[in-house]
Amino acid sequence: MDLYFSPMACSLATRIAFYEAGYEAQYIQVDTKRKQLQDGSDFFAINPLGQVPVLRTDDGSLLFENSAILPYVADRFPAAKLAPVDGLERARLHQWLGFIGTELHKALFVPLLDEKANDDVKRYAREHVARRMQMLQAHLAAREWMLERFSIVDIYLAVVLNWARYCDVDLAPWPAALGLMKRVMARPAAARGFEEELALFRAELARQRV
Amino acid sequence: MDLYFSPMACSLATRIAFYEAGYEAQYIQVDTKRKQLQDGSDFFAINPLGQVPVLRTDDGSLLFENSAILPYVADRFPAAKLAPVDGLERARLHQWLGFIGTELHKALFVPLLDEKANDDVKRYAREHVARRMQMLQAHLAAREWMLERFSIVDIYLAVVLNWARYCDVDLAPWPAALGLMKRVMARPAAARGFEEELALFRAELARQRV
Repeated sequence: MDLYFSPMACSLATRIAFYEAGYEAQYIQVDTKRKQLQDGSDFFAINPLGQVPVLRTDDGSLLFENSAILPYVADRFPAAKLAPVDGLERARLHQWLGFIGTELHKALFVPLLDEKANDDVKRYAREHVARRMQMLQAHLAAREWMLERFSIVDIYLAVVLNWARYCDVDLAPWPAALGLMKRVMARPAAARGFEEELALFRAELARQRV
Repeated sequence: MDLYFSPMACSLATRIAFYEAGYEAQYIQVDTKRKQLQDGSDFFAINPLGQVPVLRTDDGSLLFENSAILPYVADRFPAAKLAPVDGLERARLHQWLGFIGTELHKALFVPLLDEKANDDVKRYAREHVARRMQMLQAHLAAREWMLERFSIVDIYLAVVLNWARYCDVDLAPWPAALGLMKRVMARPAAARGFEEELALFRAELARQRV
């Protein structure tokens, strides 16, 4: 399978899921500012929204959206046990992927990390941060992972919460959420993914400065 | 099962799914402005985010997020065939639920329908409307439904697109998307759901004016 990714973007969650599963995917880097691949070709031809991740499955289909790609990868590698397979726990998986995708990723961090969003837009995005983080804090206060065991939900959440440092969101008031992020990042698969993509991210920044 | 709903909010999609399945749920109305139930009790005690829908399952569990509740309901009533059960088509279901939830519902319509969002915030929300709607238009140009057959994706999309009329988003440039909304609303289950909730919505507005 091929993963279209941009360094340190949410596509990192799928990379980490692959590493957890021991699968060697092909990684295709996308410049999401220019909406180009590294050979200069047009990324809009791959995803009309211009967003990563995009997963090319073994039969050549293109799949979009973290909330679809992460469960697809988890189901492809059942031995890695990255997602509950059915029942209410599976519904909880989708609940938390939905929460992270809408409340944190899309409503909070996308505007905060967007150079084109002005101060009013960023202020609006921050309005509900306490309520959202408090929900995570309460949920995680007495548990190790978001579900009954480690899953793609934890990976996605760690990748998204890691953006807080880049947009002046202080996670200290929510130590249980911060603790989960650190537990994920201490796993070999996540440590490798974060380290590799941080290096690619810095290289990209350096290129943009030239 | 009990559905916490607010008239004409996204919870309408779950109501319509129940009607499609022929299931008689209990409907508990939430005043999402005051965050209260009709008996005056605190809705934050049910959902700390103060958002509908919330589904109380038969065993008393509370489930949040459209992207979890709608598939849960579809799976509970397999005879209604409201969702593909596995494979890539199941992944597509989650892809489109994710797209609708993040790109349309959360990033576009929540700020546009929010009285507390100022003009800058609304302008920012509108920026990518053409790209998002064009993606739907292209996808639907040669197909009747978002997936291979009618599903909860169509129901959720119709409920969300119906909000366009309340916030001055003109859907005319995207006739295939508009056509899908109309096909959904012509089904008996959706027609009943929209009619009932529109009446409740108008009654709520009248109460607020007193």
